[in-house]
Amino acid sequence: MGKARLEAFSDGVIAIIITIMVLELKIPSGADLVSIKALVPVFLNYVLSFVYVGIYWNNHHHLLHTVQRVSGGVLWANLHLLFWLSLFPFVTGWMGGNYTAAVPTAFYGGVLFMASLAYFILERVIIAYEGANSLLARAVGSEVKGRISSLLYVLGIATAFYSRIAAQLFYVTVALMRLVPDRRIERIVSNPPRR
Amino acid sequence: MGKARLEAFSDGVIAIIITIMVLELKIPSGADLVSIKALVPVFLNYVLSFVYVGIYWNNHHHLLHTVQRVSGGVLWANLHLLFWLSLFPFVTGWMGGNYTAAVPTAFYGGVLFMASLAYFILERVIIAYEGANSLLARAVGSEVKGRISSLLYVLGIATAFYSRIAAQLFYVTVALMRLVPDRRIERIVSNPPRR
Amino acid sequence: MGKARLEAFSDGVIAIIITIMVLELKIPSGADLVSIKALVPVFLNYVLSFVYVGIYWNNHHHLLHTVQRVSGGVLWANLHLLFWLSLFPFVTGWMGGNYTAAVPTAFYGGVLFMASLAYFILERVIIAYEGANSLLARAVGSEVKGRISSLLYVLGIATAFYSRIAAQLFYVTVALMRLVPDRRIERIVSNPPRR
Amino acid sequence: MGKARLEAFSDGVIAIIITIMVLELKIPSGADLVSIKALVPVFLNYVLSFVYVGIYWNNHHHLLHTVQRVSGGVLWANLHLLFWLSLFPFVTGWMGGNYTAAVPTAFYGGVLFMASLAYFILERVIIAYEGANSLLARAVGSEVKGRISSLLYVLGIATAFYSRIAAQLFYVTVALMRLVPDRRIERIVSNPPRR
Repeated sequence: MGKARLEAFSDGVIAIIITIMVLELKIPSGADLVSIKALVPVFLNYVLSFVYVGIYWNNHHHLLHTVQRVSGGVLWANLHLLFWLSLFPFVTGWMGGNYTAAVPTAFYGGVLFMASLAYFILERVIIAYEGANSLLARAVGSEVKGRISSLLYVLGIATAFYSRIAAQLFYVTVALMRLVPDRRIERIVSNPPRR
Repeated sequence: MGKARLEAFSDGVIAIIITIMVLELKIPSGADLVSIKALVPVFLNYVLSFVYVGIYWNNHHHLLHTVQRVSGGVLWANLHLLFWLSLFPFVTGWMGGNYTAAVPTAFYGGVLFMASLAYFILERVIIAYEGANSLLARAVGSEVKGRISSLLYVLGIATAFYSRIAAQLFYVTVALMRLVPDRRIERIVSNPPRR
Repeated sequence: MGKARLEAFSDGVIAIIITIMVLELKIPSGADLVSIKALVPVFLNYVLSFVYVGIYWNNHHHLLHTVQRVSGGVLWANLHLLFWLSLFPFVTGWMGGNYTAAVPTAFYGGVLFMASLAYFILERVIIAYEGANSLLARAVGSEVKGRISSLLYVLGIATAFYSRIAAQLFYVTVALMRLVPDRRIERIVSNPPRR
Repeated sequence: MGKARLEAFSDGVIAIIITIMVLELKIPSGADLVSIKALVPVFLNYVLSFVYVGIYWNNHHHLLHTVQRVSGGVLWANLHLLFWLSLFPFVTGWMGGNYTAAVPTAFYGGVLFMASLAYFILERVIIAYEGANSLLARAVGSEVKGRISSLLYVLGIATAFYSRIAAQLFYVTVALMRLVPDRRIERIVSNPPRR
C-alpha cells in the first residue's frame, strides 16, 4: 500500500490542528490595549504550540520521505501520533488561560511527552516494517536528541508544581533544540552509505 | 472519472471530523485536577470516537485501493457515508457530557449503525459498478464481521435504555473487533485468485 | 499553470465547509428526546445544506475534469464561488434556528442564488479561457437546468415573505433536480463529437 | 526534498483559515433585517479578509510554481507566513466587531504588515536556496509593488488612531492593488530570458 494517502491525511489533520488552535485566542469584548494585554500569555503559548506542531509536521515529512510502503501497523501508529497532536489545542488553551497554575502546565508537558513517545513508536514501527537495513534505520541511529527531549519534558512536568515559569522554559528549550531539522536523514538520503 | 479527487475530498472531510471532535473537549474554567476529572468521560468518549473515525479512514483507504474509476453513484454513496461520519462530533459531545443518560447513548449507537450501513452501501455500489468479478467483489466475500458489528450496534442501542455502561461496552467491543484491518482485501490484492 | 492545486484547494475549502456546518447543530443541554426534538429543523436544514454542498463539489469535479490549464481569472472566479459556499454554515444555522421566520429563509435562498451565479460565472470564465471549441463549451450547451434553478431560487426568496414552508420546498426541489449529475459533460468527454 | 507536501500542507492551512473566518460571523439571535444590519461591518470585513487570504493563496501558488526543491529553511519560512495568516480570523473578528475603534483597526493592519513581511522573507529564502540565476530571482526583480504595500500598511496603522475609515481604506486599496496577479512570474516562466 502506498504512502500518498497517509501523507495527505496526516497533512490534513496537522493543518487543522495548527489552525484551530487560533480559535482559543478568544476575541476580547473590549477594544483597547488593556483587553489585548490579557491575551499576551495565551498568544505566547499559541506561538509555542504553533512551533511544536510545525516541528512535528516537519519531522513527519522527513520521516516518511524514506518510506516506500506502509502497513496497517504504520497507519495506526500514525493515527496514535495524530491523536496526541489533536490534544494540543486543548492544552494550549488551558495552559494559556491559566499560565500561573500547576496542573495545566503539567498537562501541557504531558501531552508534549506523549506526542514525542508516539513519534518514537511510529519511527520504530516503520523501521520494524522496512527492516534494519532500511535508509531510515541507518539514519535514525542513537536518538540522543529524542532522549534529551523526553527527559526535559519529564523535568518540566515535575517542575510545574514548584515553578510554572521554569516548567515553561523547559518546554521552550526543547522547541528551540528541535527547531533544527533532522539533518541526519537528509544527509543519509542524499548520500547513502555503501553496504 | 478518476478516484484521486474522491480520495482527497474524503481524506479532507475525515481529517476535519477527527480533529473538530476535540473542540467538544471544552476547556474547563478551573485549573486543578477536580476540573479535569469532570472531563474524563468526555475524554474517553473522544478516544472511542477517534478510534472509530480512524477505523473508517483505514477501511476507506483499503476499500478504494482496488477501485479504478468512480461513477456519480459512487460519489453520492461516499458523500452519504461522510454525512453519517460528520455526526460523530455531535453524538460524541452529547454522549460524553451525558454518559449516564439513555437517549444520548442510544443516539451514539444509532450514528454508529447508520455509518456502518452507509459503508456497506458504498461497498455494494462500487461492486455493482466494477462488476462481480472485480478484485473488491472477490475480496469482500460474506461480510461476517460487518453483520456481527451491525447486530452489536443494535444490541447496544436497545441496551442503552437499561444500562448505559453495557451499551457503551458493546460500542467498545465493535471498535476493538474492527481495529484489525481488513486483511482479506490486502491478501487478495497482493495475491489475486486465478479466474 | 496546472489545475492540481486549484482542485486541491477547492476540495479543502469545500470539505471544511461541509464539515463545520455540523458545528451549528449545537449539543443540547438536556439529554432526553424532547431536547433532541427541538433540533429536528436544524438537522433537516443541515441535511439540505450537506446535499447542496455535495452537489457543488460533484459539479465542480465534473467542471474541472475537462480543463487543462487555469488562468488568474479562473482562480478568482473559483474563489468567488468558494466565498458564497463559505456562507452556507451561517445561513444554515440561521434558517435552521428560525425556520418560521421570513428573513433567514429569504437569505438562505439568496446565498443559494449567489452560489449558482458564481458557478455560472466560473463556467463562463473557463470557457472564455479555453475557447468556444473546448470540450466544456460543447458540453455545457444551453444551460436549461441552470436557468430553471435560478428561477426557482428567486421564487423561493419572494415566497419566503408569504410562506416559509413553500420557500423551503422550492429549495428542496432544486436540490432534488440537481442531484442528477451533469451527464452531458460525462457523455461528451467519453464520446467527443467530431468537428 | 520535493515541494508537493509543502504545497499540500499550505493549501490545507490556507483553506482552513479562509473558512473558519466565517465562524466569526456569529449567527444573530434575532431573525429580522435589524439583526442582520448589525452584522454588515463584520461581513464587509470578512469579504476583505477573504480577498486577502485569496491573494496570498494565489501568490503562494505563483511563488512555488517555479521552485523545484525545498530546504528546511524554506519549510520554516513558509510556516512563518502561515503563522501570520492564521491570525486573520482573530483580527477580522476583532476589527469587524469594533470597526470604530482604533486599536483593533491598527492590529488588523499590523497582521497585514507582518504577513507581507513573512511573504517577502519566504521569497528571499527561496531565492537564496535556488540561486540568483533562478527563474524566481529574475522574475521578482525590484519588488516595487511590495514596497508600496508595506508603506500603505504602515500608513494605515498610523492613521487608525485618527480615522478608522481612512485606515480601512488604505487596507482596501492594497487589496485592490494586489488583486492583479503577479504577471511578471507568469511572463518569465512562459518566456524565460536568455542568459
